[in-house]
Amino acid sequence: MINKENPIGLFDSGIGGLSVLKQFIKFLPNENYIYLGDTARVPYGNKSVATVKRYAAECTEFLLSKNVKLIVIACNTVSSVAIDDVIAISDVPVIGMITPAATAAIRATRNGKIGVIGTRATIESDAYSKAIYSFYDNDLDDDSLISSSESKEFNIKNITVYNKACPLFVPLVEEGLINHRATKLIAQDYLENLKTEGIDTLVLGCTHYPLLAQLFTDLMPNVNLIDSGEHSAVAAIRLLGEKNLLNADSDSLIKKPSVKFFVTDIPSTFNEIANMFLNFDISKPEIVSFGN
Amino acid sequence: MINKENPIGLFDSGIGGLSVLKQFIKFLPNENYIYLGDTARVPYGNKSVATVKRYAAECTEFLLSKNVKLIVIACNTVSSVAIDDVIAISDVPVIGMITPAATAAIRATRNGKIGVIGTRATIESDAYSKAIYSFYDNDLDDDSLISSSESKEFNIKNITVYNKACPLFVPLVEEGLINHRATKLIAQDYLENLKTEGIDTLVLGCTHYPLLAQLFTDLMPNVNLIDSGEHSAVAAIRLLGEKNLLNADSDSLIKKPSVKFFVTDIPSTFNEIANMFLNFDISKPEIVSFGN
Repeated sequence: MINKENPIGLFDSGIGGLSVLKQFIKFLPNENYIYLGDTARVPYGNKSVATVKRYAAECTEFLLSKNVKLIVIACNTVSSVAIDDVIAISDVPVIGMITPAATAAIRATRNGKIGVIGTRATIESDAYSKAIYSFYDNDLDDDSLISSSESKEFNIKNITVYNKACPLFVPLVEEGLINHRATKLIAQDYLENLKTEGIDTLVLGCTHYPLLAQLFTDLMPNVNLIDSGEHSAVAAIRLLGEKNLLNADSDSLIKKPSVKFFVTDIPSTFNEIANMFLNFDISKPEIVSFGN
Repeated sequence: MINKENPIGLFDSGIGGLSVLKQFIKFLPNENYIYLGDTARVPYGNKSVATVKRYAAECTEFLLSKNVKLIVIACNTVSSVAIDDVIAISDVPVIGMITPAATAAIRATRNGKIGVIGTRATIESDAYSKAIYSFYDNDLDDDSLISSSESKEFNIKNITVYNKACPLFVPLVEEGLINHRATKLIAQDYLENLKTEGIDTLVLGCTHYPLLAQLFTDLMPNVNLIDSGEHSAVAAIRLLGEKNLLNADSDSLIKKPSVKFFVTDIPSTFNEIANMFLNFDISKPEIVSFGN
């Protein structure tokens, strides 16, 4: 039995998923949240798929034990390789990062040129390209669409995805160098090809990247930035609304968001970085341990 | 009897409400829309309250005659002075611009200093200040909140609203001077006091202003911009979800958004400006006429 008051559970290999939590709090401020960061085993990106699947299953079981009404995989790596495993063991709905952002990118592009940036692991998994191409192909197969001249006129003729791994963005963000000149120089290098290709839409395929949104906009004005946290939060409103599982509106607008933080390790800079992501001081996280 | 397939109706005195429609299409891409721009009588801002109420009632009746399932007052002036009149004659839910943005601003601010910019009419109506102060006062009266130390710690001690009328932004946007140096110079003048006061949150109290978001961020980095279109769209997802009135998901991601445009006059630059707001070419608007 799922109750409206039950929390929404989010998990990530570390703290990046806090940018996803931030979007959820923005769009669904009245919900109760549980955030699990597997900070003892971060990063997942350079681990084998089998290991990531195992870690994801452990995180999922932990959230389920807390009676969450929805699981959000607030991590692009896990969403890329293990979402089916999370769904398989969950008796509540699951939202990952890939589908909401991939569909939003297809809707947003006008010239069909979509850039995807992410960690090396996410880019090598090719999860975004595959999702974008497969959704787009499905659309092209839709006869009702092809037969409508109004729609056809609007259709983009082709979609091309340009991938770029940007491995330095995560450490730069975690060191707080968001407005540093060095970060701008590195971003110029990373984005140069995407700019030359003329992309009009850029998927931020890593939960750390929304913190660099201003920099991306400065370097590529007029490019649509797709924040997977934002689109997964909107997907959650819709999903919970349809299932009659939205928590009741609170009378208060100034209460602290209701979030319980769990981590598998407390790095020395945890509170500082969490504040940078969320813009409020978080309550002391509780340490949990997994079999490991 | 309201059906899920029925359209969402938006109305505005002119074309500014297209920035609201853009947010609705972003967050609710599968809905059918009717947009009514009262371009023959624009702007409403310098008309008497009685006249604005009459115009708003006529727009509302037109949308109701099209069997809309929701009415969105995509106009700050009408939302400021005539939302009660629209609600009084509507047998479907009504969403205005003020409440979603005012509540979002209170949630977003950390230092309690909120700026509101708008046309002279909106600023003189004081609708945003009144809404923000009254929501905030209600919160302070909430005993359950005051008794919670966790909440108290998070509470901002005071809220102060700083208003600034920015009458030139609408014509500058409509002339397409979004990235012009002159617009930046004018914005610097308009925003100088708000910046000196140290606001951390800025309500874009006019539907034209989201097009200047990049400029505002350049001039005031780290300030939360509150886009009333975005927050009203999110309110609509929630409201329609709870009433089981969300339209079914379309299979297609690349079909043209389903919007029927009605105007009371077609200005020579209508299509050009509409494209600037929406980023797609709109279908030919149909001209309707009211008693006038």
